[in-house]
Amino acid sequence: MQKEMLEMNSFHRCVKKGERLHNGAEDCIGLLLVLSGRLRVFTVSDEGKEITLYRLLDRDICLFSASCIMASIQFDVAVEAECDTEMMQISAAIYQKIMRESAAVANYTNELMAMRFSEVMWLMEQVLYKKMDARLAAYLLEEFSYAETETIHMTHEEIARQLGSAREVISRMLKYFMTENLISVSRGKITLLDAEAMRRMAADSMR
Amino acid sequence: MQKEMLEMNSFHRCVKKGERLHNGAEDCIGLLLVLSGRLRVFTVSDEGKEITLYRLLDRDICLFSASCIMASIQFDVAVEAECDTEMMQISAAIYQKIMRESAAVANYTNELMAMRFSEVMWLMEQVLYKKMDARLAAYLLEEFSYAETETIHMTHEEIARQLGSAREVISRMLKYFMTENLISVSRGKITLLDAEAMRRMAADSMR
Repeated sequence: MQKEMLEMNSFHRCVKKGERLHNGAEDCIGLLLVLSGRLRVFTVSDEGKEITLYRLLDRDICLFSASCIMASIQFDVAVEAECDTEMMQISAAIYQKIMRESAAVANYTNELMAMRFSEVMWLMEQVLYKKMDARLAAYLLEEFSYAETETIHMTHEEIARQLGSAREVISRMLKYFMTENLISVSRGKITLLDAEAMRRMAADSMR
Repeated sequence: MQKEMLEMNSFHRCVKKGERLHNGAEDCIGLLLVLSGRLRVFTVSDEGKEITLYRLLDRDICLFSASCIMASIQFDVAVEAECDTEMMQISAAIYQKIMRESAAVANYTNELMAMRFSEVMWLMEQVLYKKMDARLAAYLLEEFSYAETETIHMTHEEIARQLGSAREVISRMLKYFMTENLISVSRGKITLLDAEAMRRMAADSMR
């Protein structure tokens, strides 16, 4: 019943790479269920500086493009397609109606928000405490430079040891670098993709 | 019915200033409804560095002291009483049960989380985009307002810790504020001299 109602009030949408789908609180286009492709969710400062908060991949749902469904969401994010992306766009008004009636849908929404909240907290802790993004970027640049190639062979464990960090922290940050298209990582190999962006990452203390 | 169930599974609790109520994900003491006083919610880095995320005042509810009610909350916060505080402590298990059954309670929880998320996003934007002069001015104004006087007792060290900065940075900025006649500083006391100019300083950051 609810499922049918959602389906009836959703439509299939394809967007091209680089297209801005959502821009702050003034628009409330609805929830976006990614079918294929990738969306980037970010904040923009008054000076136009962007910070990527997280990415949405297959089966992920973008909640904040429907931020009008909750009165207490008092912040703006922007959403952009990072490659050609196919999605279902679900009416905010209908979703809100169903969420108000159904504990299951409301709890699901809760979990969705908690997931995004966790990603933002992770990012903030990295930025505030460790400057681990800058440290890892600087470290990798040095290693690439020593190796005199674009590819180095190192395990996450080794990098963690050298930076006095934990393997889990390094793995997650490398994953973040990958989604930022700074490097590619495969079977113990790390390849530099964007030296310029990596140098910016290393130099920018972000504070 | 739900209200009765919650009341039966809650108890009245008083804590002294400085008491740590909740410490990361390993404990899940339940939701805290503040009746009087003030709770500080903060994160702690591996090195023991603290960042204040937000404060909870009268009628505010602390959700993350019951983070076990949601699987997707993947971050730890600590909660401490900033002054003698009186509260109701509500069982996490009972709240979770009610939240699963009731759309109203689930949606209320959603709004609670969205409120905290908004505060954290605000903080992150301060940290990422704002300059330290504006951040410190905004922080001091808030402290003066909490203290309800023109004089607060805080060391540079404490301020630095709360802002995720270094004591040297804070001392230098306080000195700058003094020379601008915004405040006077003497032996652990900071006195507000020019609230208007201080507010301009805090707002200037938005440029």
